[in-house]
Amino acid sequence: MANAVASVRCYEAFAALNRVVPSDGRGHAQSSNAAGCKVFHNLGFNRGEFTGNCSHSIRVSRRKEPRWQSVGFVRRMARATAVAARNETAQSLSAVSHSGKCSRVMVIGGDGYCGWATALHLSKQGYEVAIVDSLVRRLFDEQLGTHTLTPIASLQKRVKRWRDLSGKSLSVYVGDICDFEFLESSLRAFAPDAVVHFGEQRSAPYSMIDRGRAIFTQHNNVIGTLNVLFAIKEFAAECHLVKLGTMGEYGTPNIDIEEGFITINHNGRSDTLPYPKQASSFYHLSKVHDSHNIAFTCKAWGLRATDLNQGVVYGVMTPETQLHEELINRLDYDAIFGTALNRFCVQAAIGHPLTVYGKGGQTRGYLDIRDTVRCVELAIANPPNLGEFRVFNQFTEQFSVNELAKLVIGAGKKLGIEVEAANVPNPRVEAEEHYYNAKHTKLVELGLEPHFLSDALLDSLLNVAIKYLDRVDRALIMPDVSWKKVGVKPRTVMSENMA
Amino acid sequence: MANAVASVRCYEAFAALNRVVPSDGRGHAQSSNAAGCKVFHNLGFNRGEFTGNCSHSIRVSRRKEPRWQSVGFVRRMARATAVAARNETAQSLSAVSHSGKCSRVMVIGGDGYCGWATALHLSKQGYEVAIVDSLVRRLFDEQLGTHTLTPIASLQKRVKRWRDLSGKSLSVYVGDICDFEFLESSLRAFAPDAVVHFGEQRSAPYSMIDRGRAIFTQHNNVIGTLNVLFAIKEFAAECHLVKLGTMGEYGTPNIDIEEGFITINHNGRSDTLPYPKQASSFYHLSKVHDSHNIAFTCKAWGLRATDLNQGVVYGVMTPETQLHEELINRLDYDAIFGTALNRFCVQAAIGHPLTVYGKGGQTRGYLDIRDTVRCVELAIANPPNLGEFRVFNQFTEQFSVNELAKLVIGAGKKLGIEVEAANVPNPRVEAEEHYYNAKHTKLVELGLEPHFLSDALLDSLLNVAIKYLDRVDRALIMPDVSWKKVGVKPRTVMSENMA
Repeated sequence: MANAVASVRCYEAFAALNRVVPSDGRGHAQSSNAAGCKVFHNLGFNRGEFTGNCSHSIRVSRRKEPRWQSVGFVRRMARATAVAARNETAQSLSAVSHSGKCSRVMVIGGDGYCGWATALHLSKQGYEVAIVDSLVRRLFDEQLGTHTLTPIASLQKRVKRWRDLSGKSLSVYVGDICDFEFLESSLRAFAPDAVVHFGEQRSAPYSMIDRGRAIFTQHNNVIGTLNVLFAIKEFAAECHLVKLGTMGEYGTPNIDIEEGFITINHNGRSDTLPYPKQASSFYHLSKVHDSHNIAFTCKAWGLRATDLNQGVVYGVMTPETQLHEELINRLDYDAIFGTALNRFCVQAAIGHPLTVYGKGGQTRGYLDIRDTVRCVELAIANPPNLGEFRVFNQFTEQFSVNELAKLVIGAGKKLGIEVEAANVPNPRVEAEEHYYNAKHTKLVELGLEPHFLSDALLDSLLNVAIKYLDRVDRALIMPDVSWKKVGVKPRTVMSENMA
Repeated sequence: MANAVASVRCYEAFAALNRVVPSDGRGHAQSSNAAGCKVFHNLGFNRGEFTGNCSHSIRVSRRKEPRWQSVGFVRRMARATAVAARNETAQSLSAVSHSGKCSRVMVIGGDGYCGWATALHLSKQGYEVAIVDSLVRRLFDEQLGTHTLTPIASLQKRVKRWRDLSGKSLSVYVGDICDFEFLESSLRAFAPDAVVHFGEQRSAPYSMIDRGRAIFTQHNNVIGTLNVLFAIKEFAAECHLVKLGTMGEYGTPNIDIEEGFITINHNGRSDTLPYPKQASSFYHLSKVHDSHNIAFTCKAWGLRATDLNQGVVYGVMTPETQLHEELINRLDYDAIFGTALNRFCVQAAIGHPLTVYGKGGQTRGYLDIRDTVRCVELAIANPPNLGEFRVFNQFTEQFSVNELAKLVIGAGKKLGIEVEAANVPNPRVEAEEHYYNAKHTKLVELGLEPHFLSDALLDSLLNVAIKYLDRVDRALIMPDVSWKKVGVKPRTVMSENMA
């Protein structure tokens, strides 16, 4: 009960916080401090089950050939089947794959789409896990009228259910990492060996709604990460920061995208420099800013960090989240928070034409959420040296939007659903036909065995969408945020009719 | 009197603001809003004297050969003399050198070292000028116990004196551009054709004092610039943003530094991409973040912007600031705000060994403040097209710290002052011996006739330092901010003894 009360208090604090956001990015900060959402819950579970140091260090068979090119449907299926067997082996081993050096992992943003799945996966693998989250993502849904297709439980219920089913406890700290006092308390109390930082506003359209949300996104993400860096420097200097970046930091250059750095030969000299960044939303830009800040602190302070430039994540189930309804992961299908493939599957399920923005030639890297959690684990289990800033491109396959649409149409046909694609005006400013070839070998070298996009996955996603069909709000499907029209006036002012 | 009262009120607001800074970057924002320093003064002068459109467009003779390499002392003197004559001609012509397209210029940060000199120069050239400034730079001095060597007048007195002497009025808006309501009001009231944005926390050591000031620097600079971008988009879409960046954005790569972009040939393909950034303080990083944000808005919104990656500025006098004691520019010599050459001249004047950090091989681009004001004018008079984001490297010569020390020692000898250099432990994290070759041809192509560092300039600087000798506080000379030791605990807490 105490937890529930604290949770409500927190919610109010964030509500106060967000009322001010649209009018002024600083105003937001004001309320955040004034409201003082520094409640942090250790839910009182014992840190019991972890069995201590583990010296096993396993490298499963590596894929020699990076699989970065989109291939035909049939070829993909064949590969997926071949890899499935290897994956099973890898997963059965991975429970002991982390080295003895890292046993305590703090997952900031551990209540979110990737964060929750990651927290459970790491807990399953024997890591002692703490979740740090302000729960503000749940507030965004309230304010925008969006919601997850899957009915997710409260964080409190999630954590209790996981303990009951797995026997493993998750420490929970509810608060805002932009509040340094809160962050310091959490970090010192939990004393992590690694911090996985998902705790950012992570939607490009959200950052383009209005000035207030653009400012909120950059303030929240940049200052939050700066606080994490200072906290690690001061209270946990050897701690490994695993930071979620995005492939969107690179944009769509006309040359191959490397993993973080590129060797440039110029006027007879040569140097290996940070790969040039061309982000195309205030959200993506905030991650660019983070990357620069983190690289500096590794050099100046000797911190160690891994920047995971993640592609677009799809899927909803992981072995852990599918154990129980109360462990289910969120699945966003709206135009603000939903990502391409997940959205297409829900659109297919309800008979809505697939919303292909513009020409549909936009090509990006994609990965299954089961690979997200594994990539994070691999990064943690193989930390960089102190002072090292490394970058992994975290995705497994490239697709254009048109290719995704084609795949979903095919999968629908097999389930007897007639699906069609529609080209809608592109609300973003982006190239719709372009070269794209991004490297992503480093995580494979560490042992990643990708789950390639398969018929089975599409079936599963479509079936999840069909299962929760009655929860779909069709009004949330079409894009309503324009990169060109974003203005200073606060949006989402609820009209009297709606109130 | 009304102005004086308003000024005091503003000062208190910023005092309130800054009291909170050290403990929390957000707290700062809170006070800023709470205090509501939205006072903006139009001092009531008429916008009288400007004579309207002017179609003259003058390009003075161009230097074909960029002068980026440090040369010997004698050679420099010869050049300086040769260029002086050309400069005189250029300056007599430049009063009519701006095109008819741009006549109203808003100078954000117009009370600062570069901003004040620029505001007067542009006013002299016939532009209608508004100064926007929160005056927080004056507060930093109060808080840190630092001060300008030259006794500068209040902004109110400066503006009045300029009007009395030149017959030209400067509009003044006192407030914080992080307060969007203030910025919007100012921009709409003045309706500029160009905004010159100096309005950022501009000291690298300041940003490394403690966590609070690191956060303040990035928040203040990034959010302020985002606000400027939104304000221009919404209320002055054709307005040209001239933004002060820094050569420090590039760091010290082992290849030539280009102006903003570099063509990379890679795996058989080629693209021209943003030059990779390797900034090495939270201040320099904030400028990197700005550059990325601005580039995006030019692409997405069709704004036009010039990013002036400025080198280290030296000197204090411009033809306008030397007209009267109340127009004099600030000259910082302390270890927080003072820049290399200015500091060395003051150290020489008081018989303090020149503080060479580390090995002294650190090489950077430098320029005379008389060139700063001319570069800004050239950028304004030759605006980019809508949608264009261009970058100029704004400096005229390269020097290593050791070379600067040698020049000052030589100049001292001529004045009968014995000067010596001392290698002190480097408080920064930076390469002390490195390759450095930065291009800077674009402003020369637009007509810049550089003031190269000369004996005359060194004499003048040394004489200014000698004139104000009794104002020097020796306690401010040695560096006291360490890149490695910066921590979360607020510094500059005044002890009881000092109070």
